[in-house]
Amino acid sequence: MIPVVSVRAATAADVPRIAALIAMGHASAPMDAAAAETEGRHPAYAEAFERITASGANHLFVAEQAGRVVGTYQLSVLPGLAERGRTRGKIESVHVDPSLRGSGVGAAMMRHAIAEARVLGIGLLELSSNKNRTDAHRFYERLGFARSHEGFKMVLD
Amino acid sequence: MIPVVSVRAATAADVPRIAALIAMGHASAPMDAAAAETEGRHPAYAEAFERITASGANHLFVAEQAGRVVGTYQLSVLPGLAERGRTRGKIESVHVDPSLRGSGVGAAMMRHAIAEARVLGIGLLELSSNKNRTDAHRFYERLGFARSHEGFKMVLD
Repeated sequence: MIPVVSVRAATAADVPRIAALIAMGHASAPMDAAAAETEGRHPAYAEAFERITASGANHLFVAEQAGRVVGTYQLSVLPGLAERGRTRGKIESVHVDPSLRGSGVGAAMMRHAIAEARVLGIGLLELSSNKNRTDAHRFYERLGFARSHEGFKMVLD
Repeated sequence: MIPVVSVRAATAADVPRIAALIAMGHASAPMDAAAAETEGRHPAYAEAFERITASGANHLFVAEQAGRVVGTYQLSVLPGLAERGRTRGKIESVHVDPSLRGSGVGAAMMRHAIAEARVLGIGLLELSSNKNRTDAHRFYERLGFARSHEGFKMVLD
């Protein structure tokens, strides 16, 4: 039997585990579990969590299964002028524990994101996914997202 | 001789013209100039501008040429945990007066966006562009953006 997945707002205590999930899910250089656990304790993550919380417009969530954090995502609220001021929501940093992929954790988080977006008054929900993640693309399309756009990135260092 | 393009922060007085540029540039149902001018005066746009300004994290800009607003874009600042708390910037609602497309207004705005992003401490700049806008895709690639992601959208009404 697959344990129930619940999704809740992240707290500061979750940050090392969330950062480890992100490190394990890195698109081009994923870390193994031990390296990711070490990485997750870097103080930069706690500082970044403070900035997310202080913003008021960015919401970090975790998925729990049997008392363990097994997934994470962020939902950001973006006001804009288009469509007579339709608020956009951007889903970012969607990551599931590699040992649990395909078990419904991601779907539970995305259903949560859609419900949360409605509560936050979001009229258009969007996300981008690396072109090499073809499984993720089918996953998002099954959830009802339209793959309508090209996603562009530029690193500024 | 092509007049110089300058880019500056938008003010409340610019909102009807910005909204008209957005309406003329709508991906699936672009308005003609007269309809867009009427649309731009809808009070919902002034209210949305207040939300953008109040957020502190979303910045609306206009491009001017010979004293006339000929383009607009928005830059949104998104804190996150990934990459030890790298701040993301999202470029949205990039629109140029249809009569001036291809004249360098968009490039001036995107060079401004990249400079502004650095000032705002953004480490990763991103945007998405409708798949049917192939000219825009080549434009963004020439500016140095990598077309690395698939962009997904879901309208919530």
